[in-house]
Amino acid sequence: MATSTPKNRIIVYPGSFDPVTNGHLDLIHRARQIFDHVVVAVTRNASKNPLFSVSERMDLLRLALKPVLRSGRVSVDSFDGLLVDYCRKKGAVAVARGLRALSDFEFEFQMALMNRHLAPELETVFLMPDERYTYLSSTLLKEILRLGGDVTRFVPPVLVPKIRRKFSEKI
Amino acid sequence: MATSTPKNRIIVYPGSFDPVTNGHLDLIHRARQIFDHVVVAVTRNASKNPLFSVSERMDLLRLALKPVLRSGRVSVDSFDGLLVDYCRKKGAVAVARGLRALSDFEFEFQMALMNRHLAPELETVFLMPDERYTYLSSTLLKEILRLGGDVTRFVPPVLVPKIRRKFSEKI
Amino acid sequence: MATSTPKNRIIVYPGSFDPVTNGHLDLIHRARQIFDHVVVAVTRNASKNPLFSVSERMDLLRLALKPVLRSGRVSVDSFDGLLVDYCRKKGAVAVARGLRALSDFEFEFQMALMNRHLAPELETVFLMPDERYTYLSSTLLKEILRLGGDVTRFVPPVLVPKIRRKFSEKI
Amino acid sequence: MATSTPKNRIIVYPGSFDPVTNGHLDLIHRARQIFDHVVVAVTRNASKNPLFSVSERMDLLRLALKPVLRSGRVSVDSFDGLLVDYCRKKGAVAVARGLRALSDFEFEFQMALMNRHLAPELETVFLMPDERYTYLSSTLLKEILRLGGDVTRFVPPVLVPKIRRKFSEKI
Amino acid sequence: MATSTPKNRIIVYPGSFDPVTNGHLDLIHRARQIFDHVVVAVTRNASKNPLFSVSERMDLLRLALKPVLRSGRVSVDSFDGLLVDYCRKKGAVAVARGLRALSDFEFEFQMALMNRHLAPELETVFLMPDERYTYLSSTLLKEILRLGGDVTRFVPPVLVPKIRRKFSEKI
Amino acid sequence: MATSTPKNRIIVYPGSFDPVTNGHLDLIHRARQIFDHVVVAVTRNASKNPLFSVSERMDLLRLALKPVLRSGRVSVDSFDGLLVDYCRKKGAVAVARGLRALSDFEFEFQMALMNRHLAPELETVFLMPDERYTYLSSTLLKEILRLGGDVTRFVPPVLVPKIRRKFSEKI
Repeated sequence: MATSTPKNRIIVYPGSFDPVTNGHLDLIHRARQIFDHVVVAVTRNASKNPLFSVSERMDLLRLALKPVLRSGRVSVDSFDGLLVDYCRKKGAVAVARGLRALSDFEFEFQMALMNRHLAPELETVFLMPDERYTYLSSTLLKEILRLGGDVTRFVPPVLVPKIRRKFSEKI
Repeated sequence: MATSTPKNRIIVYPGSFDPVTNGHLDLIHRARQIFDHVVVAVTRNASKNPLFSVSERMDLLRLALKPVLRSGRVSVDSFDGLLVDYCRKKGAVAVARGLRALSDFEFEFQMALMNRHLAPELETVFLMPDERYTYLSSTLLKEILRLGGDVTRFVPPVLVPKIRRKFSEKI
Repeated sequence: MATSTPKNRIIVYPGSFDPVTNGHLDLIHRARQIFDHVVVAVTRNASKNPLFSVSERMDLLRLALKPVLRSGRVSVDSFDGLLVDYCRKKGAVAVARGLRALSDFEFEFQMALMNRHLAPELETVFLMPDERYTYLSSTLLKEILRLGGDVTRFVPPVLVPKIRRKFSEKI
Repeated sequence: MATSTPKNRIIVYPGSFDPVTNGHLDLIHRARQIFDHVVVAVTRNASKNPLFSVSERMDLLRLALKPVLRSGRVSVDSFDGLLVDYCRKKGAVAVARGLRALSDFEFEFQMALMNRHLAPELETVFLMPDERYTYLSSTLLKEILRLGGDVTRFVPPVLVPKIRRKFSEKI
Repeated sequence: MATSTPKNRIIVYPGSFDPVTNGHLDLIHRARQIFDHVVVAVTRNASKNPLFSVSERMDLLRLALKPVLRSGRVSVDSFDGLLVDYCRKKGAVAVARGLRALSDFEFEFQMALMNRHLAPELETVFLMPDERYTYLSSTLLKEILRLGGDVTRFVPPVLVPKIRRKFSEKI
Repeated sequence: MATSTPKNRIIVYPGSFDPVTNGHLDLIHRARQIFDHVVVAVTRNASKNPLFSVSERMDLLRLALKPVLRSGRVSVDSFDGLLVDYCRKKGAVAVARGLRALSDFEFEFQMALMNRHLAPELETVFLMPDERYTYLSSTLLKEILRLGGDVTRFVPPVLVPKIRRKFSEKI
């Protein structure tokens, strides 16, 4: 099948990652199967009050992604300002978003359409996480932590002590 | 940004295309912005009674896609059997699907999860068509034709006479 | 509050009405509170196999609407071809549609957007039926009849014998 | 915690079961955790053209449920007429339905409201299948069979040869 | 129909109940038709700022449920920590939740899946409130109170003066 | 077609309008095609912290609606208390609401049912904005402003400098 020389296709996966969950990691793994490089980009200007600072969130991401960071095909970064400006700067062809459920769909669709108006050349690519992670979100994870529940099945084992320590500090 | 040598990334966009609409063309255009090669694959074994034969549908697609087929980065094909088997044969990294609306979402999600069970290495990538095509489907197009309405805004101009002729033959 | 001279505002409420239910009647009642004239328009060219003929459906509608037809503000009619062409002929300012549930919403939205492309000056107005009729559709009504259930709460009493008779004829 | 003497609580789980899948079995298992007896009731009067006859569908259910049928807490039956009449005859307190996805939700909700109007004392109880079965339906199963795919992960192993044989007969 | 000796089936209906509405009471009534005992459990650790204290909310529940509390088959309680831990302590077979609308569905589904991961033996049972209560929530009730509207149709008459008094105190 | 003398039909379009967007203006334009007078009514008692004061929001609306205000068929107002009380005072036959997306649908439906309980004679009329405005909301607009993005395509040009000035004041 004749094609032009393949381009180096970069995709940006933006989010709060407060903290990263197994659901996020599943999505990063999927994105790197179909793109050449995945930039995991922590938003610096989230309006909501975060549990972890931006640098802590990046550290947790790097810890969780350690095995794949060495491949040079995944990197961890942060950004502020408009997502579309950041993507242009990175030379990304697309934004990756996970599509877990109906409420996701509406919000994600609206964001993607808005971004398309701001940057028509940038596509949003929706990927489906494993159905085991349908229920999982950083918000629910923090709620379980707050109520004293066990989170070992929701984040990589290496992150559990760090997440628990942070949580007890906050309280 | 250091990455491994880019792969030639092929994506399969399967469908009935009975007939192709501006919405399908918009999606093909978007898919080829982010992948190296788009295989537009007409399903041979659709259960529903089609208006156009598989070869007619492929002809309409080739006519509509004439300007981009020359690039060698889009091709038109047909298949029967399981989609996942066809994708493996083609060496595709992913399946492209358009996500227009809520009802789409449910059906598409279910198909994608089923395909993932049959071929875990194959991702389904959802793309958003232009919002101008939110309303558009081959079914609605045929309904308008049946009722004598004007379809010049819903398909490429070059296809209109062929689609109209077919429709009057059928009646 | 100063306004220009009020226009005579006609709204078309199209449907299969196979047969009319209390849900349809509720919607007609609501539409005539806010418009000057409601044209209840039976579609002649429905693709699905109907239980009642178009003229039977119009008779049932006229029987159910007897008290309000005398006001001259509701009329019963039928049409074929495109809905937008029929509305233009009638001088309607809008199409009325009931919005019962999610699945309705998607389909209705798609139809309304398509109609807007065919006739930009014609609005689709969505009204909410009484929540008692959320569950009610002509299809479910016929299913209950088929299984020998009691339909006296779903249609006006005056229609029950006619609907039952038709059903036993068919079988 | 003082309560009156516990009643023997029977629940009816109606469906086409054409054929039974792992998703259905998961739901039956869940229902029997919270009710005293689960009647799996095959609808005799489904309008759609089935692959298996009612007695074949009951045989497949009995084969798949063999380990739990001995407990006397699950039984397999069939019925025609209205579901609410059948439930009353069985002395059931509720109808069990699986809630897999959005499209399910709408249809199930509408059916449940209609049944409530026909039998106000009968509740519909919605249970959530394992998320591994979110994608699974008898329709998709038959589609995979039709296309020559492998269904060993979607039905109990003991059923696979019977289902395959039936399918090749039909073709 | 032979079954094992019926168990005493306890169901927990958790919520903020800030304050209880006719919609909640409708659901409690339905749950007690199909289970032996309903524990109405006020969450002590809701993150949002409540109008009524936990003990006030329990008092309102007891007042509204006075006629059925005597049966010994409904009780009012409160809890903190994880819902699944509370249910285990109570020996509950299931959690009851009302399913009013689409947004409910998504949130409820996510919570139920998360709870299943934390306690696989505990089912979530979804019941449908009367369609008259589709629109009703504690939040809307408080909004109407805030704007000076009449709430006599949304809560049991015996609660109206207490709710109004509380509201004027807060302002 | 014989009807009684047309009434002067007033519709109220309530909202925060913080600030007005092209989506709101599109809806006002549609409402005035089918009603005699549109009252654009800014809610004075919104609980959320607004960017613009009520009088500033009314000024922006008057500026954006300047060409149509002269017709005497559109007016700008504000209200507090219950919407239904305000509509009765204005002699409105209906409330206009835009229906953009699924999440809208649920919330709007719930509000409309609640209002119907408070004022059964008042209908809620749902209109569909142009699909170009599917993505657009005042919240997203403010988010783009906050991140330094360009909003010239989302509001009338005459409003851009005022909106930008306000935003920089706030920060």
